[in-house]
Amino acid sequence: MAEALSLNRFRVVLSRPGIPGNIGAAARALKTMGLSRLYLVNPKHFPHPEAESRASGAVDVLANATVCNSLEEALTGVSMAAAFTARRRELSLPMQWAREAAGTLCEAANQGGDVALVFGNETYGLSNEELAICQLPVMIPANPEYSSLNLGAAVQLMCYELRMAAVAPGEAPASFGELATVDEVEQMIGHFQQTMTASGFFNPDNPKRLLPRLRRMFGRIRLERDEVNILRGMLNSFQFPERFRKPD
Amino acid sequence: MAEALSLNRFRVVLSRPGIPGNIGAAARALKTMGLSRLYLVNPKHFPHPEAESRASGAVDVLANATVCNSLEEALTGVSMAAAFTARRRELSLPMQWAREAAGTLCEAANQGGDVALVFGNETYGLSNEELAICQLPVMIPANPEYSSLNLGAAVQLMCYELRMAAVAPGEAPASFGELATVDEVEQMIGHFQQTMTASGFFNPDNPKRLLPRLRRMFGRIRLERDEVNILRGMLNSFQFPERFRKPD
Repeated sequence: MAEALSLNRFRVVLSRPGIPGNIGAAARALKTMGLSRLYLVNPKHFPHPEAESRASGAVDVLANATVCNSLEEALTGVSMAAAFTARRRELSLPMQWAREAAGTLCEAANQGGDVALVFGNETYGLSNEELAICQLPVMIPANPEYSSLNLGAAVQLMCYELRMAAVAPGEAPASFGELATVDEVEQMIGHFQQTMTASGFFNPDNPKRLLPRLRRMFGRIRLERDEVNILRGMLNSFQFPERFRKPD
Repeated sequence: MAEALSLNRFRVVLSRPGIPGNIGAAARALKTMGLSRLYLVNPKHFPHPEAESRASGAVDVLANATVCNSLEEALTGVSMAAAFTARRRELSLPMQWAREAAGTLCEAANQGGDVALVFGNETYGLSNEELAICQLPVMIPANPEYSSLNLGAAVQLMCYELRMAAVAPGEAPASFGELATVDEVEQMIGHFQQTMTASGFFNPDNPKRLLPRLRRMFGRIRLERDEVNILRGMLNSFQFPERFRKPD
């Protein structure tokens, strides 16, 4: 399965997470986006019931998490590590926004190495030493007046961007009904014209903008075939009520 | 401010939220992405200390939240409402994925009306009745084997997509140092060649792939001017060590 191959190359590394709930939220974020490999560097509390509660159906990701004593250990075997930073600090490397970074990281993963997303402590972020061993500083676009995303939310966003870059989302599910074709809609417009002419509402010698406006309105609502049939039945009933009225 | 104008047209509506922490997480998600208008339809517990705790620096969004008795009330004055659904249920309207929907919703907001993002209860989602009064069903691409995003995480993702659609993220912050120009890098390569020729490492009559490989390597790391100067100083020291050695 192409999807698993690509997304399984990604590790999500939380360095010194302080709040157990955020570890659980991160696990859930990974799994919803098809990732599975969580690394925890010196977590303050782990395992913890609050992590399990927030992980919900992703407790398997928690159970399989790798606990490390240093960021270096968590990055063993990694060919590219992205460091998430909220502050516009002095960076020694060019930074990328999350969406662009997702493309860069998927390319790296496709070249065969493991790729890591590294997130720092909730309060302090990543240290300068941690930043220095990562190759790609990444920022998530945010409100400049309040850019403090929750750790689990930041992990969710970036895993989503990776999924969007790595996996085609597939066809939008078909709407319940089949859409009407252009000619069916046009025949219906003709039916409206005929009926409105008969009723006196439409004057072919002075048409104004009536037909274009009908066309515009129905064009916007992407009519289904069943709806066209309903509308035409309704028009028929206006034009020939005697055919529709029930005998007393 | 163009940004505020557009994003302030959006309401985020949580229908029957059951977990107070999720209300707080949603408030924080809104504010980090520059949105501010939170509507709560029959929240199970509100206000609640857990909501305030999870809202962190977005308690103002919580304090200004509008509590309603029905979804209809929350949608008063709204020209387009997007309904978030995780299941591929039978939809009476064509569905859009989150990213495409963000574009559709920003267009609607730019036409002047208010636009709503409607999220259902954590366990049950939106009812069929609630879905029916929204114009646009939206799904977030997710792992088909576990697509259950946390409510706050789903709000975060969609607010992010709206921000990405509505606000240019701005220039990537400049890297710490000024980048070297192409000619500065070429002069440095020439300096390498000269020094390596003098040292005997490079044979101009049999150059092999040495210079192209150096160029490729330095091309990949986007050298800064200071780094070029450091490297050239180092080359000088190799070529003319007598100029660099301190007198004993």
